[in-house]
Amino acid sequence: MSKNLTKREEDYSKWYNELVVKADLAENSGVRGCMVIKPYGYAIWEKMQAELDRMFKETGHSNAYFPLFVPKSMFEAEEKNAEGFAKECAIVTHYRLKNDEDKPGKLMVDPNAKLEEELIVRPTSEAIIWSTYKNWVQSYRDLPLLINQWANVVRWEMRTRLFLRTAEFLWQEGHTAHATKQEALNETVQMMNVYADFVENFMAIPVVKGVKTETERFAGADETYCIEALMQDGKALQAGTSHFLGQNFAKAFDVKFANQEGKQEHVWGTSWGVSTRLMGALVMTHSDDNGLVLPPNLAPIQVVIVPIFRSDEELENISIVVKDLMAQFRKLGVTVKFDDRTTQKPGFKFAEWELKGVPVRIAVGPKDLENKTFEVARRDTLSKEVVAAEGVASHIQALLEQIQKDLFERALDYRNTHVTEVNSFDEFKKVLEGKAGFVSAHWDGTAETEEKIKELTKATIRCIPLDRKEETGTCVFTGKPSTGRVLFAKAY
Amino acid sequence: MSKNLTKREEDYSKWYNELVVKADLAENSGVRGCMVIKPYGYAIWEKMQAELDRMFKETGHSNAYFPLFVPKSMFEAEEKNAEGFAKECAIVTHYRLKNDEDKPGKLMVDPNAKLEEELIVRPTSEAIIWSTYKNWVQSYRDLPLLINQWANVVRWEMRTRLFLRTAEFLWQEGHTAHATKQEALNETVQMMNVYADFVENFMAIPVVKGVKTETERFAGADETYCIEALMQDGKALQAGTSHFLGQNFAKAFDVKFANQEGKQEHVWGTSWGVSTRLMGALVMTHSDDNGLVLPPNLAPIQVVIVPIFRSDEELENISIVVKDLMAQFRKLGVTVKFDDRTTQKPGFKFAEWELKGVPVRIAVGPKDLENKTFEVARRDTLSKEVVAAEGVASHIQALLEQIQKDLFERALDYRNTHVTEVNSFDEFKKVLEGKAGFVSAHWDGTAETEEKIKELTKATIRCIPLDRKEETGTCVFTGKPSTGRVLFAKAY
Repeated sequence: MSKNLTKREEDYSKWYNELVVKADLAENSGVRGCMVIKPYGYAIWEKMQAELDRMFKETGHSNAYFPLFVPKSMFEAEEKNAEGFAKECAIVTHYRLKNDEDKPGKLMVDPNAKLEEELIVRPTSEAIIWSTYKNWVQSYRDLPLLINQWANVVRWEMRTRLFLRTAEFLWQEGHTAHATKQEALNETVQMMNVYADFVENFMAIPVVKGVKTETERFAGADETYCIEALMQDGKALQAGTSHFLGQNFAKAFDVKFANQEGKQEHVWGTSWGVSTRLMGALVMTHSDDNGLVLPPNLAPIQVVIVPIFRSDEELENISIVVKDLMAQFRKLGVTVKFDDRTTQKPGFKFAEWELKGVPVRIAVGPKDLENKTFEVARRDTLSKEVVAAEGVASHIQALLEQIQKDLFERALDYRNTHVTEVNSFDEFKKVLEGKAGFVSAHWDGTAETEEKIKELTKATIRCIPLDRKEETGTCVFTGKPSTGRVLFAKAY
Repeated sequence: MSKNLTKREEDYSKWYNELVVKADLAENSGVRGCMVIKPYGYAIWEKMQAELDRMFKETGHSNAYFPLFVPKSMFEAEEKNAEGFAKECAIVTHYRLKNDEDKPGKLMVDPNAKLEEELIVRPTSEAIIWSTYKNWVQSYRDLPLLINQWANVVRWEMRTRLFLRTAEFLWQEGHTAHATKQEALNETVQMMNVYADFVENFMAIPVVKGVKTETERFAGADETYCIEALMQDGKALQAGTSHFLGQNFAKAFDVKFANQEGKQEHVWGTSWGVSTRLMGALVMTHSDDNGLVLPPNLAPIQVVIVPIFRSDEELENISIVVKDLMAQFRKLGVTVKFDDRTTQKPGFKFAEWELKGVPVRIAVGPKDLENKTFEVARRDTLSKEVVAAEGVASHIQALLEQIQKDLFERALDYRNTHVTEVNSFDEFKKVLEGKAGFVSAHWDGTAETEEKIKELTKATIRCIPLDRKEETGTCVFTGKPSTGRVLFAKAY
């Protein structure tokens, strides 16, 4: 089974597309640019959702739901935001189909059912939400509003790829409103930190925290904080963003409150989101030529047990031992599957569960029953060991924790060896020819230079790292003065 | 606060609309027919989701996600389904906005960005899902497919009401595929039973299980099973439906499988769904003139504690006792809130939590501290008792269970006294003049009679109850022979 997967070295992009489909994560649908998230992929997404939702609630947020559609006049109220998304909007113009009289059995748009005002399918929900917040906020007592929404959004991308860039995707979007600038800034940073915590500790993907340049900023924000991850092919992937919206949306939608002195002020806002794009980051951080590698925290099945048998009697004897083991796993909260199909050989099953990234595989045959042992294999290292049956469940529970840590450490090592400081544009270009990773370079702070570097190298500024050291230098492209390095990379 | 709520006897419909908004469940948005589900309302919906999701998984289903859009040609493939939904479809025709040159700062639909094929915003997902299943099913080994989706859908209703009928609503839709007719029928009935179990035992709303007449059947189904509830104003509400689709979608989308003998057969299908409409049923089954009444299973806050104090010192003394009590509640898994706001008087708080339907309220003042008691009030009966502090947490835990049962029993009593058997059309009409409830009558089985009765009385056949007794009789309208009674009602 794994033999059919393209090798990463041969064609990374093809490997990715094949893996996503073959591991049953997602596939393209009959609708241009839209994907179907298959049950196995969706089960991983549900684990992400559950953990994020817990973290959002722990930080005081509640969920709510706002309309899918945004009337055009509402959409255009915040001009920068509208401009940023206008070129990729799906637009509803009619509300009825009718029988096509020329083509029996076919339908056509009913020209008499044209909407008075077009509706934009939300590419993001600031407009509809701030138009609602206007009615929810009168006094400082109504603040802060700390709301999150789990939803689908649509951005009409011309070139799409499963999870990484799809016309419709699933995400969560937090939208908060505050009485003071400082409180909104604190919220923006807090949520970036929540994302970093989640992506590093739950997904085992190391990230760099930073802020975006003005060019890369969210349309309508005063500042965009981000977490940036590095994929195995040396390209960066923006894993989450948290925007400080200033008073931009409050002004566009006239959202004011009476402060403690009774004076009217505009509200301060933030918004923040992560999406099914994280599924792409997951695949491209941990997986290998044999298929998916899942951190135990995200694995819908953490342990698979494959019986090795030549007769029904052997399978029966194995099953007795396995049932007892499964009960032990359940007590420990470990998710386990017993693959007792009689239609497939063990080798086929090994390859299938390898492809699907199950962190630990247990094989058990008649010899193991005799010796009171199990064969335990790690998906991440592909290593095997023979383990005594007694205490195996807690041994594997500890092993799962170890795998979670090891995956993060391995990805961190990789990332750390793929940040290259350069001091000339020749060096810059040379590093970008290979599996570059992040290129750390001085930049003169202008959008012009950023744009030119992008034209010449396809690399963009991924972020200005929050932990960068103060270091005077000269821009790698223009030679103008700079006060610190930024991270460039080609990116997804 | 409750004083501002219209009384049910005065204007039931107005009472409902006001309550939904004032109790912070939902409100109308700036988008025609679309609602905003507010955090408090959404928290109730989340409890419904969690329980249903658990029940679906327990019966072997997995979640997945399919596209929001359905290309027109795909939409029209199953003709009856297409015809059923064509008149209420939101249709995407363009994918880009551009600056309106005549109106600076305004946007317009870019006429150069017209889609080659229009996209229908899903009103239901059979078409897109069966077009996908075609690729997932080759052999009997691939069956059954047992998949559920949590999603938003859009039906362009002309007259909308919060939760009950909105252009966009949230729901779950199960879509299953089976090798045999019997298996699909079993699934259809199983899911109706899951819904009945959920609505009765979790939402405390009694339902009648039945099948729809052909007229009321889901467009594209061979049979629609349903659960019907009765609201306080005597109108019925369809609370959930489960459809046996026969081979209709399999034929429309050419979904075949090789059976055990290697012969090609069409797959058998089901679909089933419940929606945010259930929120409307919840409100209209239990609530009263003081506001919302929530069954403890669905209450985001099950117990609210209101301190009665005249000084900071008194509040402080109360807080010490309350903190201990809250810890006890948390251990028992009871959700509790301490309303220690100093900006509002106890009377205001009482009214607010009454409006929001919190099942149990505890009041505690200096006298209670002295006597080691609490005042415990039930929201459903508005009754109060003084309870000894010792053991109060487990007392209230038991009380919550009692309230859950009592709410169901009360609703069941109401429902049972609102099913009237009639044997003439005069009786039929007379009963329907008041708060009718269900009218149980003989019907000749024709769509013509059904239609005429609807024209004359606005009552429709809600269902043919599964447990109806065999009883020969004559149609209440035509006098033609009938083999059993059906339930008529005016309905939401």
